[in-house]
Amino acid sequence: MKIVVLKFGGTSVGTITKIKKIAKIISNYSKKRYSVIVVSSAMSGVTNELIRKSKEISNNYSDAEYDVLVSSGEQVACSLIAGRLVHNGLKSRSWLAWQIPIFTHGPHKNSRINNIYKTKILKYLKSGGIPIIAGFQGINNEERLTTVGRGGSDASAIMLAKFFKARRCIIYTDVEGVFTTDPKKLINAKKIKVISYEEMLEMASLGSKVMQPVSIQDARLNRIDIEVKSSFTNKLGTLITKKSNIINNKIITGISSTNNDSKVTLVGVKDRPGVAASIFRPLSKNLINVDMVVQNISANGKETDLTFTIKTEDLNKTKKIIKENNDINFRKLLFEKGVSKISIVGVGMITTPGVTFKMFQALALKKINIKVISTSEIKISVLIDKKNTKKALIALHKEFKLNK
Amino acid sequence: MKIVVLKFGGTSVGTITKIKKIAKIISNYSKKRYSVIVVSSAMSGVTNELIRKSKEISNNYSDAEYDVLVSSGEQVACSLIAGRLVHNGLKSRSWLAWQIPIFTHGPHKNSRINNIYKTKILKYLKSGGIPIIAGFQGINNEERLTTVGRGGSDASAIMLAKFFKARRCIIYTDVEGVFTTDPKKLINAKKIKVISYEEMLEMASLGSKVMQPVSIQDARLNRIDIEVKSSFTNKLGTLITKKSNIINNKIITGISSTNNDSKVTLVGVKDRPGVAASIFRPLSKNLINVDMVVQNISANGKETDLTFTIKTEDLNKTKKIIKENNDINFRKLLFEKGVSKISIVGVGMITTPGVTFKMFQALALKKINIKVISTSEIKISVLIDKKNTKKALIALHKEFKLNK
Repeated sequence: MKIVVLKFGGTSVGTITKIKKIAKIISNYSKKRYSVIVVSSAMSGVTNELIRKSKEISNNYSDAEYDVLVSSGEQVACSLIAGRLVHNGLKSRSWLAWQIPIFTHGPHKNSRINNIYKTKILKYLKSGGIPIIAGFQGINNEERLTTVGRGGSDASAIMLAKFFKARRCIIYTDVEGVFTTDPKKLINAKKIKVISYEEMLEMASLGSKVMQPVSIQDARLNRIDIEVKSSFTNKLGTLITKKSNIINNKIITGISSTNNDSKVTLVGVKDRPGVAASIFRPLSKNLINVDMVVQNISANGKETDLTFTIKTEDLNKTKKIIKENNDINFRKLLFEKGVSKISIVGVGMITTPGVTFKMFQALALKKINIKVISTSEIKISVLIDKKNTKKALIALHKEFKLNK
Repeated sequence: MKIVVLKFGGTSVGTITKIKKIAKIISNYSKKRYSVIVVSSAMSGVTNELIRKSKEISNNYSDAEYDVLVSSGEQVACSLIAGRLVHNGLKSRSWLAWQIPIFTHGPHKNSRINNIYKTKILKYLKSGGIPIIAGFQGINNEERLTTVGRGGSDASAIMLAKFFKARRCIIYTDVEGVFTTDPKKLINAKKIKVISYEEMLEMASLGSKVMQPVSIQDARLNRIDIEVKSSFTNKLGTLITKKSNIINNKIITGISSTNNDSKVTLVGVKDRPGVAASIFRPLSKNLINVDMVVQNISANGKETDLTFTIKTEDLNKTKKIIKENNDINFRKLLFEKGVSKISIVGVGMITTPGVTFKMFQALALKKINIKVISTSEIKISVLIDKKNTKKALIALHKEFKLNK
């Protein structure tokens, strides 16, 4: 049995017209003799409307009842898709988590799928049926409804692909795939045909617009090929797969950039164990998201400088927290608004010497000053003046031949 | 354990404000040391909106998927009620049909509850919890979702009252109870404090505005006391119970009337077995609802006259069907538009002689001509000119002292 998992996001089932359209996409896979498992999100807007109602009922709505409430949205979408396929003469039905069942563990609102019973669905697939499975939902050991917190219906699709050993998991969404850089920032941005899980994870904002990192990580761990594509067009999407599947002559795969960051530097921090933790613990408690962190070795073995970036909107709060924290000894607090992080990502750089140099030279030729540098295996990030963002994107996009 | 079943209709949970209000009603019963089982319909409008969607998907929407689709409405309402009770500090949770389970038999869209497993709910009640059970829904032997066709959530409430041996089943709705006659037609109409199942069934339109006849019949068979009351006011409602519970000095309990009926008479019908069936079979097939049927004995043993009433909008169709039906022999077809059926209903008439006479005299004194008469054990119906409806209602309401 050649199993393929098709997952449709909220916008792909947002209207009756859209549902009729995706019913055709599903039939086409079925005609190609695939055994098709469909996973659906709720129609777009429905989940938010249900959450709005719950907030009107209580500012501290029960987590267990939240799961009962919001999971109704996927139930409706699955019924409508199955109803349309039946209308078109296909054998199809909706499957709710408790009917399969799909078991989760962990707390309500933030459960993780840990087991999917295969017997009923396999029997149904063998009989020629197309199961339309409600994404996002599961049941726990007490037979209560649960929802998958991070990743939502994407996570459901990846786990179904894993348990049913699917050939491929196709994520239908409202974007055409993953791009070399944000098409809103650079008109030359190109859709990436194939990308590794690792690159996708390092692409941060570029990637997470398409799929939640937790689901990419699940796919990576289970070696599931994912294709991300738009349900609004017939174009090819982006294939996310393992590195060894990728024959690529490009050194880097994509460039991501941030907006409106601020850089904070603590000068002359006492260099002793636990100092970084004591700086970041209160920030994390106050829900301040720290992005890039750079610390140099101590020149004198006693003191070091520590730099990190945050969203500019969190700057005042951050300064206050650091100043009021008596656990940290430092000589001076520096900060700078209006910086931007530019990252080049690509598995190609592992085997290609001089990528860092190429990047720095390309920026230097455009007279763009680099403030901070941080690198990983497949990613190089630099901080520059926000006003140079576009210039840097154009230069790097050209340097690494991403337009082609 | 003193169990009481509280059922809330769609208008009673129609808005968040209403849900907050009924949460208070539920708490009050709980404070009185009742073990409370709550049954809820979907928020008003929700079911119709889901049905509208299904019709857009297909003019022949799958019955099984219809049940999956519409039962989501009760799931949402139950979560919101339970969520509010939890917010108020009570122990409560939603229970969906599959979690209890509530088993049904019969086809999708029109199932009947035939078994309710009690263990989990009894355990939950004993732990002090208030279960909020989704009305209207059940599961069948294949673990598919089903819905209870006739009676809907009322039927769920009555069956829960039966299986859990509830002291009482309280139906919260948007009317205050059952009235002696339609308050829109007669300002003097009074709310009936107590009425028997049989009277309620005979009250036809008056009763069915409040509760579906099938649910009243279920309650009658299982001897379940029902109280119908409004969730919008704190007033006492109407108790529907068995005859022997009623101490009543009134001969009749209520008066119902119809609007815009037409009377059809077949004169000189051959009096042989099966003739009535051959008349009504084609009408039934064409979805024409025949109300009152009167046939006199044959004067000559060969021919009889047969009269029945229908809605005036069905008159032309009815005439056509009868004329085209070669199975029926009759001499003449008479019809009259603009008649009204007035019925007096009451168990008191069984033990009170002369009720028929009293009714006829009251109408005669107002010079209202009686066209056709039909009686049952606890009901007397007459056909009169539509224009005399209000005059008749006033006269009879006064004659049988219903204003007091």
